[in-house]
Amino acid sequence: MGSKSDLAVMQDAADVLKELGVDYEISVVSAHRTPDRMFSYARAAADRGLKVIIAGAGGAAHLPGMVASLTHLPVIGVPVKSSNSIDGWDSILSILQMPNGIPVATVALNAAKNAGILAAQILSTGDETLVQNLIKFKEDLRKKVEESAADMGPQI
Amino acid sequence: MGSKSDLAVMQDAADVLKELGVDYEISVVSAHRTPDRMFSYARAAADRGLKVIIAGAGGAAHLPGMVASLTHLPVIGVPVKSSNSIDGWDSILSILQMPNGIPVATVALNAAKNAGILAAQILSTGDETLVQNLIKFKEDLRKKVEESAADMGPQI
Amino acid sequence: MGSKSDLAVMQDAADVLKELGVDYEISVVSAHRTPDRMFSYARAAADRGLKVIIAGAGGAAHLPGMVASLTHLPVIGVPVKSSNSIDGWDSILSILQMPNGIPVATVALNAAKNAGILAAQILSTGDETLVQNLIKFKEDLRKKVEESAADMGPQI
Amino acid sequence: MGSKSDLAVMQDAADVLKELGVDYEISVVSAHRTPDRMFSYARAAADRGLKVIIAGAGGAAHLPGMVASLTHLPVIGVPVKSSNSIDGWDSILSILQMPNGIPVATVALNAAKNAGILAAQILSTGDETLVQNLIKFKEDLRKKVEESAADMGPQI
Amino acid sequence: MGSKSDLAVMQDAADVLKELGVDYEISVVSAHRTPDRMFSYARAAADRGLKVIIAGAGGAAHLPGMVASLTHLPVIGVPVKSSNSIDGWDSILSILQMPNGIPVATVALNAAKNAGILAAQILSTGDETLVQNLIKFKEDLRKKVEESAADMGPQI
Amino acid sequence: MGSKSDLAVMQDAADVLKELGVDYEISVVSAHRTPDRMFSYARAAADRGLKVIIAGAGGAAHLPGMVASLTHLPVIGVPVKSSNSIDGWDSILSILQMPNGIPVATVALNAAKNAGILAAQILSTGDETLVQNLIKFKEDLRKKVEESAADMGPQI
Amino acid sequence: MGSKSDLAVMQDAADVLKELGVDYEISVVSAHRTPDRMFSYARAAADRGLKVIIAGAGGAAHLPGMVASLTHLPVIGVPVKSSNSIDGWDSILSILQMPNGIPVATVALNAAKNAGILAAQILSTGDETLVQNLIKFKEDLRKKVEESAADMGPQI
Amino acid sequence: MGSKSDLAVMQDAADVLKELGVDYEISVVSAHRTPDRMFSYARAAADRGLKVIIAGAGGAAHLPGMVASLTHLPVIGVPVKSSNSIDGWDSILSILQMPNGIPVATVALNAAKNAGILAAQILSTGDETLVQNLIKFKEDLRKKVEESAADMGPQI
Repeated sequence: MGSKSDLAVMQDAADVLKELGVDYEISVVSAHRTPDRMFSYARAAADRGLKVIIAGAGGAAHLPGMVASLTHLPVIGVPVKSSNSIDGWDSILSILQMPNGIPVATVALNAAKNAGILAAQILSTGDETLVQNLIKFKEDLRKKVEESAADMGPQI
Repeated sequence: MGSKSDLAVMQDAADVLKELGVDYEISVVSAHRTPDRMFSYARAAADRGLKVIIAGAGGAAHLPGMVASLTHLPVIGVPVKSSNSIDGWDSILSILQMPNGIPVATVALNAAKNAGILAAQILSTGDETLVQNLIKFKEDLRKKVEESAADMGPQI
Repeated sequence: MGSKSDLAVMQDAADVLKELGVDYEISVVSAHRTPDRMFSYARAAADRGLKVIIAGAGGAAHLPGMVASLTHLPVIGVPVKSSNSIDGWDSILSILQMPNGIPVATVALNAAKNAGILAAQILSTGDETLVQNLIKFKEDLRKKVEESAADMGPQI
Repeated sequence: MGSKSDLAVMQDAADVLKELGVDYEISVVSAHRTPDRMFSYARAAADRGLKVIIAGAGGAAHLPGMVASLTHLPVIGVPVKSSNSIDGWDSILSILQMPNGIPVATVALNAAKNAGILAAQILSTGDETLVQNLIKFKEDLRKKVEESAADMGPQI
Repeated sequence: MGSKSDLAVMQDAADVLKELGVDYEISVVSAHRTPDRMFSYARAAADRGLKVIIAGAGGAAHLPGMVASLTHLPVIGVPVKSSNSIDGWDSILSILQMPNGIPVATVALNAAKNAGILAAQILSTGDETLVQNLIKFKEDLRKKVEESAADMGPQI
Repeated sequence: MGSKSDLAVMQDAADVLKELGVDYEISVVSAHRTPDRMFSYARAAADRGLKVIIAGAGGAAHLPGMVASLTHLPVIGVPVKSSNSIDGWDSILSILQMPNGIPVATVALNAAKNAGILAAQILSTGDETLVQNLIKFKEDLRKKVEESAADMGPQI
Repeated sequence: MGSKSDLAVMQDAADVLKELGVDYEISVVSAHRTPDRMFSYARAAADRGLKVIIAGAGGAAHLPGMVASLTHLPVIGVPVKSSNSIDGWDSILSILQMPNGIPVATVALNAAKNAGILAAQILSTGDETLVQNLIKFKEDLRKKVEESAADMGPQI
Repeated sequence: MGSKSDLAVMQDAADVLKELGVDYEISVVSAHRTPDRMFSYARAAADRGLKVIIAGAGGAAHLPGMVASLTHLPVIGVPVKSSNSIDGWDSILSILQMPNGIPVATVALNAAKNAGILAAQILSTGDETLVQNLIKFKEDLRKKVEESAADMGPQI
């Protein structure tokens, strides 16, 4: 993530990865304040064994796109609605509208949880245990909705 | 894709997948006009051996999100700027702003090429040949820019 | 409605339906988390005797449009400004911008009350008692404004 | 419709109503240039036997909302992207964002066809023949998509 | 104004009119809930001796435009950011984007004070006392800024 | 107007003023390229006998607001959608959103015709002939709509 | 700055200029309420020895552009999200979208700190001490990010 | 600039720099396709004697901000409305909304000419000849407007 203040949002990614049984690391890498650190982090990622990178940032959010330019790994971008953001539009467009050749898999504003799930889905293309965990995760979502529907009882 | 008219945009995904050496199939599945077809397509996808689904649609684009709700496979969404679209904002927000639990990996407006590259990146997490193809693809991008810079010569 | 948390908004629809003398049921049906439940609910609606469906949802709100794709009944969509929404634009555009063939009768952001009134208007096309209730309802609106104008007295 | 120039868009409503077997009349009624005509048209509509009103207008589109204030009939609003419009946003918001008490059933930008279908759905709540016509209409939509999918053949 | 709740905003117009020495009346007239009252108010305004009408409303704000359609008097529109408004965009566009033939003199969001000043400027085209009051008003604005600049002292 | 290229839009104001019997002058005054000219023009306007000023400009349109700051005359602003404009939003917001104390009577995007009518309405507050011209103008608008309605004939 | 109330935002510019060792003065100059003061301030600036002007304003923010029209000095504009602003869009577009010939160096919404840094960068093109201060400033930014990364420790 | 296709827009910067007597070089440096080239270009710029950098790019435009993160030189950003852009909003927000610490001096959409003028203004803070050239440039702008005003003659 681009700033320690993004942790309030990005923690959701870590939590859901733990729940789904995916190993991860978290760090602060700022495209604008630590460009060298970003370069070496992104360039070394594949060789260090990372498989997917989740990058969250706000405002003119260049971190996801620049990391994507520096690695062949899939990069997931989380637009963060930071305090200086214009309702989040700046983060969304800075991450989403990448030029042809360098995709960033963008999720909804502040949707770090979905970034974690998407990372697990990506890894599950080669990992049957993860497939089972994701299927169970979907089942749990379904059950919670059905329980809340049942709780409401017949409301006629 | 949601309509045959989206093929003009979505063909780019097929072309880059071929270039990167990834097998694919293309079809028309409309969330709104053929909901049963969408259900059976999405539900059967994993068992048929599909690994990633790219869904492109315009306007109130529900295809990517609904497919994502019906499968545990990673789903990539391509917002298409169709003729009735409001500058593409409707497609972008309908695909991007998915609720927690059901991510769609969204790429830029009309960026079917990036959807294809992202699919290849996802598959490359378990396929070393694809890694090499992606590294070469990135190299080619770099060379083309450097050649166009060289073509301009010293412009001082 | 797509989530139990939408009840704070959607209760207004129930209240005005009761006031206008229209029978109704309320339930939670999530397009993304319970797609099968949505399918069977929407497909069975007409045979169960439902005449109009009001669907409220936030963010990338696919519930109203998907229900409309699964039934020939008129479907009223209520864009809900949920916590993750981008000022409500995502809900509005996801519900309003349906493709040709599958309309959703969209009302204003959070305007569940208007959804209820519209449902009563639809049913009143075949129900003279409802016509009278709606005429009285309009009269009451008028009187309240005129009373508040009278309360202000001559302010010259 | 608010202006004869809207006919290019609004003709789609007439065409689909004819296709679905619904009688209709078309006229030009401008909220701003012929307010008396609008008043008498809207006030007399129910007594003349009209069951649903479709109102299309562009820019600061007041026709649908004003007609809705003058009748208890359901009113469907079609935002028209006229030449002076700001990408259609003005028409959409002027029609959609009605205050509590006076709903307008808003359809997508320029979606006069959907307005016609919605009118038929509304009338079908008391007309079994129309129900059958709508079910057949949905079937035809489905078939056309499936044929275009079949036309593409296996594209693997 | 369209609703008593708009008084919090619209009172500023009354206050500045009093300050500038312009007689006025205030009332509640809702385009949507009291269309007849609006018709008779706007139609009678010129004969009752009104010279300018200030109309404030929120959401799909039809009051200023409809009043303008019903009188030849100049009409000033104040977009009000009401609770249901989408950041005020709906009120602004519903009031500003009037079709050719029926202007509304629109001021900034919630700028009832400027509506009052503009009304005084309009009346001052035939009233020399008002001209002097407006010139003094402008002088006072200037002095207040210069005093606050002086208060800050040399900040070097 | 701010630039000679705005004449294509602003000519409509001149034409309708001539039609309504109002004397006028047209000139090019750029806030940014000829600030001194703007200052002396706006400062001298009242003494030269001008009664209303119409200012049209595109992009970051400062002309209407700056002229309003320099005179006590009513100023009408016409947002012009120039070639560099972002869909007209920049012109609209730069003209409309004036601070308290300095109103600009803003009309719709490119609506120079409405600016001319509004100027005539302003002047008509002290000119009975203009009142009659405006009433006739409104009548003509009404008749044209009714004729186009009649032309369509019964379309049932 | 255009109003004393902007000081809460603009103080950041002063603070960073002091930190970087750049002399400055602060004052209130309103384009709309004190146009003469603005004229004489901007016209005299270069002769008084000012090298760069930072102008912050909200709403229809004309101060930066008008100052730029009155001096050949580089002008930096700070869009301020004032209480009447529409999410800051009005300030941004009024400052950014200047016509060809009269640039304003615009920074992010409320980003007075960046305006100060940019002023220092501009002055550093002729001042080696400032270059060193800016290099140290960038180093400090880098270190703070790296420390916060180190604080988080290995989070795997 | 980020791509050779941006030359159509960026040439204006070169032309005005030549007109103002400023030496320059032009090259293609893509943040996303040639990140190493961007790094070495930006890092070496100051030592090579460059004084100001103008960076133009479209879509998710990261070039200006990344260059600004890699050098202490002032960086001017030109948002380019490229073919894939969403009306230019993506380029504007990606360039403008930089975080505190790393400013980019942003000019209007496609306003490469203004970027050139701003660069000359920046350099003029230490170069009296450039000051004179800029004063003359402003004079020429003024004269052209006054000539076009004179061309129109008295239009009364």
